[in-house]
Amino acid sequence: MAKLELNILGCGSATPTLRHQPSAQVLNVRDNLMMIDCGEGSQLMMRRMKLKFSRLSNIFVSHLHGDHCFGIPGLISTLALHEKTGSVTIHTFADGAEWLDRTIRQFCHELPFEVRFNVIKTGSHLIYEDNAITVTTIPLRHRVPTVGFLFAEKPKLRHINPEMVVSHHVPQWAMHSLRAGQDFITPEGNVIPNSLLTLDPEPCITYAYCSDTTFSRRVISAVTGVDWLYHEATYDNELHAKARKRFHSTAGEAATVAREAGVKRLILGHFSKRYLSEELLLQQARDIFPDTILADEGLTLDLNAL
Amino acid sequence: MAKLELNILGCGSATPTLRHQPSAQVLNVRDNLMMIDCGEGSQLMMRRMKLKFSRLSNIFVSHLHGDHCFGIPGLISTLALHEKTGSVTIHTFADGAEWLDRTIRQFCHELPFEVRFNVIKTGSHLIYEDNAITVTTIPLRHRVPTVGFLFAEKPKLRHINPEMVVSHHVPQWAMHSLRAGQDFITPEGNVIPNSLLTLDPEPCITYAYCSDTTFSRRVISAVTGVDWLYHEATYDNELHAKARKRFHSTAGEAATVAREAGVKRLILGHFSKRYLSEELLLQQARDIFPDTILADEGLTLDLNAL
Repeated sequence: MAKLELNILGCGSATPTLRHQPSAQVLNVRDNLMMIDCGEGSQLMMRRMKLKFSRLSNIFVSHLHGDHCFGIPGLISTLALHEKTGSVTIHTFADGAEWLDRTIRQFCHELPFEVRFNVIKTGSHLIYEDNAITVTTIPLRHRVPTVGFLFAEKPKLRHINPEMVVSHHVPQWAMHSLRAGQDFITPEGNVIPNSLLTLDPEPCITYAYCSDTTFSRRVISAVTGVDWLYHEATYDNELHAKARKRFHSTAGEAATVAREAGVKRLILGHFSKRYLSEELLLQQARDIFPDTILADEGLTLDLNAL
Repeated sequence: MAKLELNILGCGSATPTLRHQPSAQVLNVRDNLMMIDCGEGSQLMMRRMKLKFSRLSNIFVSHLHGDHCFGIPGLISTLALHEKTGSVTIHTFADGAEWLDRTIRQFCHELPFEVRFNVIKTGSHLIYEDNAITVTTIPLRHRVPTVGFLFAEKPKLRHINPEMVVSHHVPQWAMHSLRAGQDFITPEGNVIPNSLLTLDPEPCITYAYCSDTTFSRRVISAVTGVDWLYHEATYDNELHAKARKRFHSTAGEAATVAREAGVKRLILGHFSKRYLSEELLLQQARDIFPDTILADEGLTLDLNAL
């Protein structure tokens, strides 16, 4: 099974507290680490969770509030001390790229790796692609321009059915095209259908990160059918008016998005510091969408395990 | 006794680790909090150490390396969320003021308090003064322009000797001038010397913060006679060449500064992350200057207790 793990580094809102760190996650895609938001203290959480700095390749910034990006300058400095090579690409709005570029130029001299910027825009756009995944922005509604991120695994190679390839005398050189889904044509010109020679690959997992946002039908439409949805639930249902005013969501609203989008599992996060426990938020969400869990610092989820 | 407490928020070098936070201290001067350097995560350490955000009045930045100032943007954001009023003055070089001003303007809108900048220069200058203390920069030698800070309590008011003022019939209105050190002149014109009517005040404590710096005779001269000296000891004595190359100090050099300056007590800090324990540094320093202690996160020192 190809590794796809979600690591929660921080799931608090606004400011670090003794219970929660500000927003940060690391999606481990086959040991290629993708950071999603990077609040103050994220580098320390990476260390705590034994996530290797050398494996970090991309940082996706949802919006330019400090609790989602103030950890980047320190992280870049630390990557330099760890003699990281290659590059790190920061996906952020133009304002964020400008601020980070100036900050890094001022403080981080002679980096042993390249910092690249991919300037993103609001709306839904493909912003990243490699052999394993695509990343598409999700339009969110917050007080400042904000996007979520939809991580989608690309179709995986099919599995060879060992008995069938032996019995049909398929040569070794044909295996790659078989795994890619092509039929096999014998030297005599007979077509042996791919379905006879291979087994289905693992399903392609999708993960949507939606923080920060008020309840939005556009979000539902953008995350319809995803496997895993992280949706902010800053407040409990009773604080609906405050949530609306501050362009955040309640637990019930997060669960409504999950239900109407038909996702498989919901992860709640971005908790207000007013809560000494998030059990109330969990209960309110489960009333609407039972397959809900709470994010927590240090939590690692195997996204293949649905 | 007038409160004068030193709180160690971070005493590691370069990058936060599982053992040490980057540089940050809070000097509590009669409940007026003065922050000295502010590495990433300092706001969380303030919370852990129960240091009130509302009491923070000044931030002194020794130099513009990230491990000494990357905590400021997040701290300012959090002060705003805590509805701090009044002002916070940040004492920093021109480059630092420009970077912080831009960052705060970009991320922290409508602050309920004023952020003021006091642009400092290298060398020895009086940069701050209030009723209780003065702060003077100490010239340090590092890879970038760097200063230390000498905090000096102002002369305190003398104590009234109750029996003597009664026996000399000194009226209430004369007490303040007595405490300020003036003689009392009776209605008949007789001079009663102050020394007869008052007792000595508490001594004026001095505290010098010196991080980061290579060994320097100018530092010795600037901290001569101080009560408490915090001096960086990034490396043990065996790593003298590395210390010199990176403009840091060894434990032995820190102790030599303390001995030659005739300070009362030495606090070692800014430890390299290579040490799993700083006992070796402590031993090497004590061989030269016995009255040495190690800084540690969460440590609070009563600077009146010498």
